[in-house]
This record gives sequence, structure tokens and C-alpha cells, in this order.
Amino acid sequence: MKIIVNNNIIDRDAFSVDIEDRGYQFGDGIYEVVRIYNSKFFTLDEHLNRLKRSADELKMELPVTIKNVAENARRLIEIENIDDGIIYIQVTRGTAPRVHAFPQNPNPTLIAYATPFSRPIKAQKDGVATILIDDIRWLRCDIKSINLLGNVLAKEAAREAGAFEAIQHRGHIVTEGSSTNIWMIKEGELYTHPVSNLILNGITRQVVLDIAKELGIKVIEEEYTVSDLLNADEVFLTSTTSEVMPIITIDQKKIGAGSPGQITQQLQAAFANKIALLSV
Amino acid sequence: MKIIVNNNIIDRDAFSVDIEDRGYQFGDGIYEVVRIYNSKFFTLDEHLNRLKRSADELKMELPVTIKNVAENARRLIEIENIDDGIIYIQVTRGTAPRVHAFPQNPNPTLIAYATPFSRPIKAQKDGVATILIDDIRWLRCDIKSINLLGNVLAKEAAREAGAFEAIQHRGHIVTEGSSTNIWMIKEGELYTHPVSNLILNGITRQVVLDIAKELGIKVIEEEYTVSDLLNADEVFLTSTTSEVMPIITIDQKKIGAGSPGQITQQLQAAFANKIALLSV
Repeated sequence: MKIIVNNNIIDRDAFSVDIEDRGYQFGDGIYEVVRIYNSKFFTLDEHLNRLKRSADELKMELPVTIKNVAENARRLIEIENIDDGIIYIQVTRGTAPRVHAFPQNPNPTLIAYATPFSRPIKAQKDGVATILIDDIRWLRCDIKSINLLGNVLAKEAAREAGAFEAIQHRGHIVTEGSSTNIWMIKEGELYTHPVSNLILNGITRQVVLDIAKELGIKVIEEEYTVSDLLNADEVFLTSTTSEVMPIITIDQKKIGAGSPGQITQQLQAAFANKIALLSV
Repeated sequence: MKIIVNNNIIDRDAFSVDIEDRGYQFGDGIYEVVRIYNSKFFTLDEHLNRLKRSADELKMELPVTIKNVAENARRLIEIENIDDGIIYIQVTRGTAPRVHAFPQNPNPTLIAYATPFSRPIKAQKDGVATILIDDIRWLRCDIKSINLLGNVLAKEAAREAGAFEAIQHRGHIVTEGSSTNIWMIKEGELYTHPVSNLILNGITRQVVLDIAKELGIKVIEEEYTVSDLLNADEVFLTSTTSEVMPIITIDQKKIGAGSPGQITQQLQAAFANKIALLSV
């Protein structure tokens, strides 16, 4: 298996991380996951622009340009023969003697690898179960960092409950899932948490905002409460790997009729169209 | 250089971290830093008990017993000939294909290494400058995890301001430093943030609580505000590496007379005694 390390494509076994890599000791790093459909990247530029933004917010230099990353990513999935899959891209501030403050001569390191991944068609058709959980994460969730312990604990709580995702709320306000954005539909209108320091502005979130516009569905990017969510007509989540995924229960309470809603399905169909267009 | 990996002492170069180690991808790990004075560990058991507590809170199994860690730590500092120094001990949930939820068969990995370190005698005598900064961290600061990006950004802000430490506050309430606990003295009484999910219960904090008791100084473990802090008679910080460190300015405002306070110096002397006792 080959991986990208900075500007090189090398054997996975030829690279490993130092124990003093700041990613390993501080979670001092950022990442992106990009979807590959029919050997083509979906929204690669958008993901790489966000990678750059995360780096900027943490005053971290990328070791290569994002143009470079894109070129190597394309080469990698050809070499690895990835048809349907994902590429995981991570940048840490690199290896330095362990002190909290930034190293004076940082050595940022990018690694990336691609793995096969199939669309979760059945779950998208049936809908998924979710749980509610307190959002205990830090106040810079807009940075896609590898400080993911809060997200990990939320997802693990979902798994233990037999659910697909944990919906986080800060006080009464619904923020986002542990690795997804959360949406609700009420009287034909689409609600989602506004972009702020409390959520990650998902690339799939942005695609769905475009789709809603194209379909003439009114979108309200405002805070809403757990109670609003539980009483919504439809609820769904979005993410790079889940795309548009209907939520049919929250803490075992049925949403709407307890099956994927009509507008959710409309958004799913439009999203599938975007993927199909990509393959032409 | 030798390091500990699980139950073995091996060459540093013989070990490296996999790119799918959960420490590297999620910050899914915990750590401790223990002080070595005159080739003897200071409060090793207390640190290892806290390591175990952090592991329990994250439902992480330690790969070896803490008795094991203590034995290997003693062997390591002998091999490495560490007189004055620190040992850094980290445990991550190990390598597994990247999904947020815990792996079904986790492979937790402990690494530890020792480095020379000298007491910051001059800073302890002169006192240090600090800045104030918003506490943006997650709500489980009681777990000594490697999700340290909030702490890193706070410490970097201090460094950029030419200060030794950043004092974090959540709203008006002073929580703790980026890698230290914060204390103030007002009319002869000692104040520090109570143990909760918002601070790490420092081992040095616990030693200083004992010392205060021994010296008959009244301690009030209650929340206090930034304004209280700025108007305190004396302010100091504690940590494994800083011990008892006087704070003489906060955001360039002098505390008291702008020099180390009398009770702070009394605590320093008592702390130095504890170290001296260790060496006998």
C-alpha cells in the first residue's frame, strides 16, 4: 500500500511517526476526508481549501501547496486503483521536543492514504437511529483538528446504544453530530445550525445548501433547540461518507412517521444526481 | 537513548508510531509528566494513579500495570543516568482502522522517555509574567488527555506576549493555566479553583494543599473571578516542572508589590524541603 508523505508517494511501511510528533503528543494537527466516486474526487478543492483554512487558524504552515496535494491525491488513487473510496489527509506540526508552545522551526508533516468505501445505500434508504448527548467539546469546532476525543466519546456512546450517530447539544441548542451536520424540516422549511465556532461547516453541508437553493427549499440557518428537533417533520444528517442520511429515531423517539421524509428523499435524489454528473 | 514501550525498554530508534495510531488521529490518549530529583521520583505513585484514573474515564485499558510502569521507570532513569529530570509517560488506544468509536480489539500502547531537566530556580526567585486568556477547552479538563490544542494555543499566546504562562478563565471565573494550576492569596488565605471537570487536579496542587495544612494556612477551594485575581495580595502557579512559581504580573499589571509574596515564598521553602527529604 502506498501513501502520500509531504510531496512523495511511498510505501506505507516506509513511513512512521516519531513519538515526539506534535500530532501524537498534543493532537496538534488537522485533517480532511474526501470521497472518491468512480475514480473521481468529489469536492476535492473545497476540502483542500478548508484544510488550508484550518492550518491558517492554527498558524500552521502546510508543508506542500494544496495544488500539490491534489496532484498527489489523483496519482495515489490511480496507483491504489481506488474506484469507490475515501482519501484521508492529515497534517501535524511535526516532530519537536515536547513543549506546549509552537516550535521555533516547525517541521509540518502531511500524510494521506486512500481506502475503498461504498455508499451506505441501505442505511440511506431505511434511515438511522440516533441518540442525544451533551456537547462537551472545545469552542473551536470550526477548525477540523485531530483533537477529537469529545467526538470519539459521543460516537462511542451512540455505538453502545446501537445507534448510528450522537446528536450533540450545548445547553438546549442542537449543534451537530459527532462527525456529521444535523438538519430538520418543519413545515417545508429546512433548518440547520449557523456557521460559527460551535460547528464544523461541512462540505456536504455546503453542497446541500446549494441543492436546497436549486430546489427552491427555504433554508433557515439559525439555532434551534432539542425540543424543536424532536418535534420536527423530518430530520437528517450530512457528512462526506453518509451524504444525506435520514434520521428516523432520536433516543428511540420516532421522527415524523418514523421513516425517511419526503423532502429528505428529494435532497438525497439531488445529491445522487451530483455524484452521477461527476462520473460523466 | 532508551525508551519504555509497554513492558520493554528498547532503543528509541527501534520504535515508531503507526499513522493509524488513535493517538495520532484522534488524540485518543493520556499522559503524565513526573519529576526526578537526585535520581529519585517525586510523587510517582500519585502520577501513576492519576494515569489509571484518566484511562478509566476514557474506558481505556492500560497495557501494563502501574506497578510495572513504576519498575520500568526506575530502570530507565538508571540506564539513562538521569539525575535531575522528567519522565514523560503516554498511553494511546493504539492502532486500528480509523473510525471514531472505540475499536473492538484495542491495542493500547504505552511509551515513556526520560530527559534531563533542572529546577527553574531563577524564575522561582524573581517571579514570572502571565497573561489572561479565554478558556476554550472542552468540559473534561479533569482527564489528562493528549487533546491539548486549547492548552497549546494558550501557551503560544503567552510566549508571543513574552509571558511565562496564560491564565485561563471561563467567563469571569479563573480556571487554571495552560499547564499549571493558579492560586491567589488574599488577607493570608489561599484560594484555588475547586476540583471539577473544568481543571486538572494537579499533583503539585495536592502537595501544596498538604503543605498549606502543615503550615496552618487556611485554604479556600472555591471559584473566584479575574477581578479577584487581579486584586489579590499574592498570586502563584504550581506544576510538576514549575513547582511553586510566583506570578508578579498579569497582563502587565503588577500583583501586590510586583515581587514574590511572603506566603508564596513560605510555600516555596516548604516545597523545597519536601524535595530535600526525598534525597536523603
